[in-house]
Amino acid sequence: MEVDKLKTVLRRSMLTDMSRRENSAEHSWHLTLMAVLLHEHADEPVDLMRVMKMLLVHDIVEIDAGDTFAYDQAGRLDKEERERRAADRLFALLPDDLAQELRACWEEFEENRTADARFANALDRLQPLLQNLHTKGGTWRSHGVTLEQVIERMQPIQNACSSLWPWVEDSLRNVWVNGKVRDPWD
Amino acid sequence: MEVDKLKTVLRRSMLTDMSRRENSAEHSWHLTLMAVLLHEHADEPVDLMRVMKMLLVHDIVEIDAGDTFAYDQAGRLDKEERERRAADRLFALLPDDLAQELRACWEEFEENRTADARFANALDRLQPLLQNLHTKGGTWRSHGVTLEQVIERMQPIQNACSSLWPWVEDSLRNVWVNGKVRDPWD
Repeated sequence: MEVDKLKTVLRRSMLTDMSRRENSAEHSWHLTLMAVLLHEHADEPVDLMRVMKMLLVHDIVEIDAGDTFAYDQAGRLDKEERERRAADRLFALLPDDLAQELRACWEEFEENRTADARFANALDRLQPLLQNLHTKGGTWRSHGVTLEQVIERMQPIQNACSSLWPWVEDSLRNVWVNGKVRDPWD
Repeated sequence: MEVDKLKTVLRRSMLTDMSRRENSAEHSWHLTLMAVLLHEHADEPVDLMRVMKMLLVHDIVEIDAGDTFAYDQAGRLDKEERERRAADRLFALLPDDLAQELRACWEEFEENRTADARFANALDRLQPLLQNLHTKGGTWRSHGVTLEQVIERMQPIQNACSSLWPWVEDSLRNVWVNGKVRDPWD
């Protein structure tokens, strides 16, 4: 019942029908399903079940720490400390074996040093990218984010799913015209 | 992007903070995470990854067919046909190998004849049960559902996770007093 609370943590991204902001629980479902659909596109072999577990819990700490917007530089300063405290509380609610396994999944995702974590992080970039492309620029437009910032933010896709990168880069370069998200959107 | 639509399909259950109804995408995330946490309580050995895939897609057909309330007898009459048509359209959006694999997962869940499907179905009963217990009787109260109906509906838990059944039955028998969901709730 504790994890039910993640359904009330709102992200900045909108659903593709633009009816409301997405929450971190449904976002986690979306990523886990994407892992099943896209794991053949990972550059390195991945352990799909481990990737799925990582994605199921990757945002759990937001129950206490809240969601930190990707382009919020100030919020990112103490993000690590807030999330570590949240992990201490939340994973301790589980029996020891599960606590250790799932905390290790979460830390592996955060450290982003293994093939599984690199692929999981690539999906965590790809899904909001798709949502922004389907909502007329979404948070890029509403928060004045630049093409250079997004290209930098999307590097995990290039690092783990290089075959998807040309499409990602083309899609992005088609969004900004003269330094601004184009308007009208067609 | 197609599956993003499942985030707008509302179930009858409320979130535990009672702020709003739950949607089928976040419900699917919750069940998939519960599978990771609870698979040791399945009576028969289960293939956890297969259970997880089943739960990720078990409600996908609601994108076209909508959610059918568990105690809605009329709505359940044509549920199967509506959902089959939805499956025909939705799984066909995938490459053949994934379409076959995930449609097979969905059908296995629906047919409920394997150990994996029985465990997945048990979780699909357990999670709304927990939510109703945490929201003062939730949909049992608001829809006048009887104890006998819920005991019947919860049989998949007894069938697949028998060690949890005494707790489930005790919890339920504590909710109804003289045929009504008790009020006040403490």
